[in-house]
Amino acid sequence: MRIALDAMGGDHAPGPIVAGAVHALADQPDLQVVLVGDQTQIEACLPTGDFPRDRLEVFHASQTIAMDDSPVEALRRKPDNSISRCWQLLAERKVEAVVSAGSTGAMVAGGLRLKRFLPKVRRPGIATVMPTIRGYCVLLDVGANVYPKPLHLFHYGVMGAIFAKHILHIPHPTIGLMNVGHEEGKGHDLARDTHALFNNSPLKDRFVGNVEGRDIHRHACDVIVTDGFVGNVVLKVCEGVFDFIMKMVGKEIVAPLPNDQRIALNALQGLIDRYDYSEFGGAPLLGIDGICIICHGASGDRAIRNALKVAAQYARLGLNQLIVQELDAIPVPSGIDE
Amino acid sequence: MRIALDAMGGDHAPGPIVAGAVHALADQPDLQVVLVGDQTQIEACLPTGDFPRDRLEVFHASQTIAMDDSPVEALRRKPDNSISRCWQLLAERKVEAVVSAGSTGAMVAGGLRLKRFLPKVRRPGIATVMPTIRGYCVLLDVGANVYPKPLHLFHYGVMGAIFAKHILHIPHPTIGLMNVGHEEGKGHDLARDTHALFNNSPLKDRFVGNVEGRDIHRHACDVIVTDGFVGNVVLKVCEGVFDFIMKMVGKEIVAPLPNDQRIALNALQGLIDRYDYSEFGGAPLLGIDGICIICHGASGDRAIRNALKVAAQYARLGLNQLIVQELDAIPVPSGIDE
Repeated sequence: MRIALDAMGGDHAPGPIVAGAVHALADQPDLQVVLVGDQTQIEACLPTGDFPRDRLEVFHASQTIAMDDSPVEALRRKPDNSISRCWQLLAERKVEAVVSAGSTGAMVAGGLRLKRFLPKVRRPGIATVMPTIRGYCVLLDVGANVYPKPLHLFHYGVMGAIFAKHILHIPHPTIGLMNVGHEEGKGHDLARDTHALFNNSPLKDRFVGNVEGRDIHRHACDVIVTDGFVGNVVLKVCEGVFDFIMKMVGKEIVAPLPNDQRIALNALQGLIDRYDYSEFGGAPLLGIDGICIICHGASGDRAIRNALKVAAQYARLGLNQLIVQELDAIPVPSGIDE
Repeated sequence: MRIALDAMGGDHAPGPIVAGAVHALADQPDLQVVLVGDQTQIEACLPTGDFPRDRLEVFHASQTIAMDDSPVEALRRKPDNSISRCWQLLAERKVEAVVSAGSTGAMVAGGLRLKRFLPKVRRPGIATVMPTIRGYCVLLDVGANVYPKPLHLFHYGVMGAIFAKHILHIPHPTIGLMNVGHEEGKGHDLARDTHALFNNSPLKDRFVGNVEGRDIHRHACDVIVTDGFVGNVVLKVCEGVFDFIMKMVGKEIVAPLPNDQRIALNALQGLIDRYDYSEFGGAPLLGIDGICIICHGASGDRAIRNALKVAAQYARLGLNQLIVQELDAIPVPSGIDE
């Protein structure tokens, strides 16, 4: 299991990225990590103590794409950037997976440029795991595809369900469509046409129809499909509301307690940790012929370690082969815009 | 001050709607309420005790639009419905405002059918007040316009800022555009074109640029504009996350406390009450020539009472005149699609 890790991507790179790789090597004896980025900077971050140096390789890339660079322009202007080099290693089959906490836009654009998608997939989508009242659900796309067609959202449903089944261990995942109301006919053309596509497909029995924003955390279904604009906003709104309320709870409920402040603070910290994005180990870009995990820009070593774990698990389970089989078994209705 | 109140709209109508009207009459000595809906049902809900019956009128409407009716079809199929009758009273200038907790879609469609918009406004938008770390901000549109043009969002910025200044008492409201990243050039065409429109307008100094989902509750700006699809999803996601976390806090932080459980429970209830939608008294449909307040379907008497208070305040402040003046003072760039 060989994974390319973008050492330069993320708000605090390369320190925590390299540290995450070292932890992951200790966890997984069959893992090999290729750290891609500035060799001098990476080597300065390597631990001085004992670690499996033979399973860690450094692939020098002289350029770095910044978070505020325009993704497509930066990929062109900086040909030797660490993200492109990761994708190149995947394209050459030198690694099975790529992992980055760098610019999501550049990661996606780099993947799209390769045009190495799974058969039948027209546009890959980013899947993210969300906590709910009954466990976890999958939301996709959260930012790869801001102009999807109904067929893209349909494929996101298929891929998200496979992810939910094999990674989240939900035996028969249900699928819902993010919309502005539950009734059929609600929303814009994309929503209406996607609703019809699901309802006229072999996935009909698993399709719960439209879901609203407040249904995510109620766990109205296991997989929620939406366009990359809405999905990205939803993901960040959830993060924002969570942060906001945790601050309020700390200040207004926990701080004034006369006797149990310490106990309440521990419970609050437990809640914050449990819903920390780091736990989920990044978001896979589904539909790529290969494995790609996109991590939060603020990723620390724990998030990177988990992302490497998820990438390896994803490969071992052969999720892409399962996606190909499932898409192959579903006839595409004629006349559908791809 | 005369307001038409849809007595049949809302999950528990007409009971709490009528009760809310009676409370509002007690609060505001210059208020007159026209309860629109089934006369028999309304009269059965009127209190037996003392209340200003002379300032309460019943306008019979024999039909009711259900929450799951298709709005446009229902307006046509049920000509004597309570929502259309409310709008009719406004069109005939018999009331200054309409208030409903019924179908948002039918309220908006009823308002659009009248085509009585403020000068220069092409499409009204629903504004909603959101709690933030520094007070409140305004998000619009949250569901009236799922196919907006950049000029519509620009007008939402102007109208939202007037609302923020006069209702939320923010002296110099700033405006942000909901997008998938902070950098210029992010997002879809609508977002990019709206960004350019603000930046080339007299509102440039108040425009903070793109904001992301996580910026709402951080209070990155006072007014956030977006299309009705995204806004509606955002509003409901916030509700859903809030409910979800409050449940978790109750179960995991408050319930296990050995000594201070009662104190913590009171603080939790205080937090829930403060962010309850009922407090904000509904969401105004801005851009209509008249006042329209749309309430949450689950509205109880407190929410209706507050909505009637906001509608009256809105009229007294002459917000629509301020909107007309401001829009009149801003030149529309030539060649802009209206």
